[in-house]
Amino acid sequence: MKYSFANDYAEGCHPSVLKALADTNMVQQAGYGDDAYSRSAETMIRRLVANDAVNVHLATGGTQANLVVLASVLKPFESVVAATTGHIFSNEAGAIEATGHKVEAAHTTDGKLRPDDVKPFLNKARGHHTVRTRAVYISNSTELGTVYTKQELTALSEFCRVNDLILFMDGARLAMALTAPSNDMALADIAALTDVFYIGGTKCGALLGEAIVIVNPALQKDFHYHLKQRGALTAKGRTLGIQFDCLLSNNLIFDLAVHANRMAAKLSAAFAAKGFSMLMESDTNQIFPVLPNELIRQLQADYAFLVWDIVDTDRSAVRLITSWATPEAAVEEFIKNLNNLVL
Amino acid sequence: MKYSFANDYAEGCHPSVLKALADTNMVQQAGYGDDAYSRSAETMIRRLVANDAVNVHLATGGTQANLVVLASVLKPFESVVAATTGHIFSNEAGAIEATGHKVEAAHTTDGKLRPDDVKPFLNKARGHHTVRTRAVYISNSTELGTVYTKQELTALSEFCRVNDLILFMDGARLAMALTAPSNDMALADIAALTDVFYIGGTKCGALLGEAIVIVNPALQKDFHYHLKQRGALTAKGRTLGIQFDCLLSNNLIFDLAVHANRMAAKLSAAFAAKGFSMLMESDTNQIFPVLPNELIRQLQADYAFLVWDIVDTDRSAVRLITSWATPEAAVEEFIKNLNNLVL
Amino acid sequence: MKYSFANDYAEGCHPSVLKALADTNMVQQAGYGDDAYSRSAETMIRRLVANDAVNVHLATGGTQANLVVLASVLKPFESVVAATTGHIFSNEAGAIEATGHKVEAAHTTDGKLRPDDVKPFLNKARGHHTVRTRAVYISNSTELGTVYTKQELTALSEFCRVNDLILFMDGARLAMALTAPSNDMALADIAALTDVFYIGGTKCGALLGEAIVIVNPALQKDFHYHLKQRGALTAKGRTLGIQFDCLLSNNLIFDLAVHANRMAAKLSAAFAAKGFSMLMESDTNQIFPVLPNELIRQLQADYAFLVWDIVDTDRSAVRLITSWATPEAAVEEFIKNLNNLVL
Amino acid sequence: MKYSFANDYAEGCHPSVLKALADTNMVQQAGYGDDAYSRSAETMIRRLVANDAVNVHLATGGTQANLVVLASVLKPFESVVAATTGHIFSNEAGAIEATGHKVEAAHTTDGKLRPDDVKPFLNKARGHHTVRTRAVYISNSTELGTVYTKQELTALSEFCRVNDLILFMDGARLAMALTAPSNDMALADIAALTDVFYIGGTKCGALLGEAIVIVNPALQKDFHYHLKQRGALTAKGRTLGIQFDCLLSNNLIFDLAVHANRMAAKLSAAFAAKGFSMLMESDTNQIFPVLPNELIRQLQADYAFLVWDIVDTDRSAVRLITSWATPEAAVEEFIKNLNNLVL
Repeated sequence: MKYSFANDYAEGCHPSVLKALADTNMVQQAGYGDDAYSRSAETMIRRLVANDAVNVHLATGGTQANLVVLASVLKPFESVVAATTGHIFSNEAGAIEATGHKVEAAHTTDGKLRPDDVKPFLNKARGHHTVRTRAVYISNSTELGTVYTKQELTALSEFCRVNDLILFMDGARLAMALTAPSNDMALADIAALTDVFYIGGTKCGALLGEAIVIVNPALQKDFHYHLKQRGALTAKGRTLGIQFDCLLSNNLIFDLAVHANRMAAKLSAAFAAKGFSMLMESDTNQIFPVLPNELIRQLQADYAFLVWDIVDTDRSAVRLITSWATPEAAVEEFIKNLNNLVL
Repeated sequence: MKYSFANDYAEGCHPSVLKALADTNMVQQAGYGDDAYSRSAETMIRRLVANDAVNVHLATGGTQANLVVLASVLKPFESVVAATTGHIFSNEAGAIEATGHKVEAAHTTDGKLRPDDVKPFLNKARGHHTVRTRAVYISNSTELGTVYTKQELTALSEFCRVNDLILFMDGARLAMALTAPSNDMALADIAALTDVFYIGGTKCGALLGEAIVIVNPALQKDFHYHLKQRGALTAKGRTLGIQFDCLLSNNLIFDLAVHANRMAAKLSAAFAAKGFSMLMESDTNQIFPVLPNELIRQLQADYAFLVWDIVDTDRSAVRLITSWATPEAAVEEFIKNLNNLVL
Repeated sequence: MKYSFANDYAEGCHPSVLKALADTNMVQQAGYGDDAYSRSAETMIRRLVANDAVNVHLATGGTQANLVVLASVLKPFESVVAATTGHIFSNEAGAIEATGHKVEAAHTTDGKLRPDDVKPFLNKARGHHTVRTRAVYISNSTELGTVYTKQELTALSEFCRVNDLILFMDGARLAMALTAPSNDMALADIAALTDVFYIGGTKCGALLGEAIVIVNPALQKDFHYHLKQRGALTAKGRTLGIQFDCLLSNNLIFDLAVHANRMAAKLSAAFAAKGFSMLMESDTNQIFPVLPNELIRQLQADYAFLVWDIVDTDRSAVRLITSWATPEAAVEEFIKNLNNLVL
Repeated sequence: MKYSFANDYAEGCHPSVLKALADTNMVQQAGYGDDAYSRSAETMIRRLVANDAVNVHLATGGTQANLVVLASVLKPFESVVAATTGHIFSNEAGAIEATGHKVEAAHTTDGKLRPDDVKPFLNKARGHHTVRTRAVYISNSTELGTVYTKQELTALSEFCRVNDLILFMDGARLAMALTAPSNDMALADIAALTDVFYIGGTKCGALLGEAIVIVNPALQKDFHYHLKQRGALTAKGRTLGIQFDCLLSNNLIFDLAVHANRMAAKLSAAFAAKGFSMLMESDTNQIFPVLPNELIRQLQADYAFLVWDIVDTDRSAVRLITSWATPEAAVEEFIKNLNNLVL
């Protein structure tokens, strides 16, 4: 195999992260997130979001972040709404339900939730015979590679505030979202418009780690207990702190995301040049070209990627993912390959 | 502060581990534990335990390993017995209960469970009005630094088999246990005498990570689902795999444990030479000298350690922990300090 | 108000049940379901289903029965499929999720599940990244008043067996289903075609109570523990036992259901005679006529019933429910009223 | 067997309760606790506790009441303290843990908790590494038949308020406690000194039912959701409402408790007259005489009761329970029997 476009967690971490781990290796630090690096990462995030009152907690992965956040903000009878494509609905083996909460799902075409998608769940007429919808889960970028506009997020945020709903953004690929050509938001906008979100490290240059940012002061109290109870409080919190400290310095995480998006855009352009359409328009690091099945088979000889969905008898949509680690040469070689196969 | 003896997770990882992470950094690997390094770690563990049929899964921390293992092996109405000093009973913020299971606790003086400690829980006479005791949780070394002998573990193991109890060993400090002077077991003995255990990496040279070894075939099925559902399946499983692959090569993890134990033994000898007794005899990397409160205050000027328990009006037991990272010079300086303070 | 057709639990219990409670009142009995009456009810059910090996447990209500059964048969990462109209999906305040399990929902037009509705949940391609579908929940009669035919239930049952799925029937209105004109099954068919089901008492002549029948021997073990743990093991189990003992004697429960269905059929015929259509064809005790909003308002002056759904600008579907207790005179008066309002 | 003194739920209900059920049987009522009788029971309780703001909810049993109350008042990482004899610790098959919460247990000799029993749980030094103790569970009368004095309850209540602990009283046998000779409290005292408690019906004249009284306004909101979610919201809430409406009228429940206590006192006196001691002093309906094993065997020929504990080689403590239903003649015959056996 020449290269895998199957996901954005196939390589290790950015060399700067490795260097930061090495540089700090023998400095003794307090455990469980009270280390200097984790605190420094918090300070940097506070500056980036222009809000000194946010709390930052570092978790080891996205499913973990999702379940700890939702278990901490919901009462036993409260539910969260997600898109049917939302990671918590379709890709976490019932992690949210295992903490006792229903995930209510809205079907959307582009993976984004809008007020009209959430509204029906608020109109349940049966009072305490149904769950009470209390949180809205969105991903940015979404599982379909799409990105929220400021107008869209503002509308959803206002809807949530009016309806006393907690807005939670899964930012496993937030850096890619905020550096996408179609994006018109900064990290401070995300913080201003959500109650809690996280900045993904695993898919953007770290060995592992997600930085949970709790904006809403009402949700900050006792969060450490929830982390500990769900097995999400890392003894060597420094391992996560150092990585975020490095990634947030000098704009590194965003530079890496720019690269990932640019690699995907090159692939998109190559498919477009050959007349292939996209299942979903995406300007982030996940793209979904619709290809003839025969071509898919030919490409699979040298490349790994996911066959996403059947489109018709002859064609399927595939998913290709690039990352901070994708060598430009690998992309160029893929394109050459494609151009040779499609005359 | 000159040095912290407060815990064994204050530094980063052994330099060999860092090097292994760097050497493999840009090799693409499958995610979620299907990488070559995790599989290699499994192969090495199978060889070490002389059992090709064990399954190995890598988790990010001890509480996580404990809760996933217990949630996977217990039915909703089943409980686990632990010592009152057991980590799951007293130090995990109710992590096991959060998965729905009662932890039944037996008071022991040395942190070790023996058949007679477990027996009373089996004699509950009220059938389905009480939980059914189904698992026994032990730590080796224990939270008090003590180590199971082969005879003790064999007796407990036989008791468990006769009574259809699952024996689970928390091995956060298993390397220290198996290299303690008083130890008479090898890793293969642990595997032969338990149903499931883990080899701690976090406290023995890794940035983070615990290698869960499922010996009992009946407990192996579907474990991946449990990991995923509890947020314990790391996308970049390679991050854990590489570390264990390195630590398990050339006996590294055990060499590191030998060092940790030896540093503690030096401290112990120094306290003994000054006539101080120990709250608990330990030949692993946690020691519990009983010291005059005034001396404790003096030592605290330069060193961090935990005041464990009040012994009488004038004296308290403290806990000092050493690790693979503790410089021998730091230990020697501490001893010099002690000798200066105690004439 | 002249009469409420809002539900089938507005009155107390059938006089024979009250008499049975009175007749046995001072006889001492063992608690928690070990009384002679509960055992007699079990014996009668075994005879009715022609299977001496089924286990019978009496619970106090439907949500309770649903949650105990599902919590007992599912592993933590396993899910149950229901129709979107299914009680566990839409009317139990997240009771199933509170035990840790996802309810996956299929949209159906008539409230019944067929193999094709369940199939998509089995084809999830992501292995342990998604829940594993393990049970199928159906109601008979459904929440829309419809009834499974033997052919339909046989097809679903075979599909479940082939795919290792547990088939669970919520029989809150099972007596009405089995006495519906369109029904072609006996209780023995239900037992032969499902793994576990219950016979509802609350809506069919009892003060409260549902008789859970566990057919599949693999699901019988330890069920008492689950009942106790979920607060569903009644100290005075006799209270439930006596009622089922009475209702199952001399075909009483089925005679009561016949009455309930007949009262609904009279109402249906009256609506049909006036040219009104039904949202859903039902020959059990729940009917869903589509009526002009003005007529609904007029009927509401004297009668309670639920406005079920908006059909168009002028018309809504309403739900009227009859029961064993509905006086034929009340039905006749309602019809007279209707006929006076609709000329 | 002549009579069972094994428990206080062997018979049905007081004849007045049966009559009340019969008298109201065909009156239509709203479901799920919104019936006139449940509301009337609430009104009566408000009057009895001299507090118009308490909320009353009727559950079907004690374990159910315990688990719904605790699941509703505790956050996921919070725990409840109970005596080791407390029902939730030792007799509910892990029902509280199944809702995710740890039960911390204090050993006491008389089944009663005092501030000094609770204090150690508040002094846990490890912050979010341990559960946070948030509620205190007591039973009155206790599982050992003992009764709280006003001074004791006041001391515990003040301790709880100072330490922000919720005080919850399991009143499965509250009527017996409040009518015991040693009691010096009224129902209004219970309400003034606790945050939430319940008045047991199952063991005091009802077919089933416990009346949960939520005094603390902060705990009242959304309780219906918790009831529904745990399968504890009875469709025919009237079944419970009518019974409490009857039992609370004309002091009936307390008159029945007086009888139960008096029957036990007669038995106690008979044992004392023969020189037998009591394991535990109790003036409620549970007594624990210490008897020669031979005498126990002889009494068992005609009577059912529990052998509670081994005292020495020759003697055991037994538990005899009387109830509202215990015929005085049965008690007198037992005493005659005893006197014949012990010369």
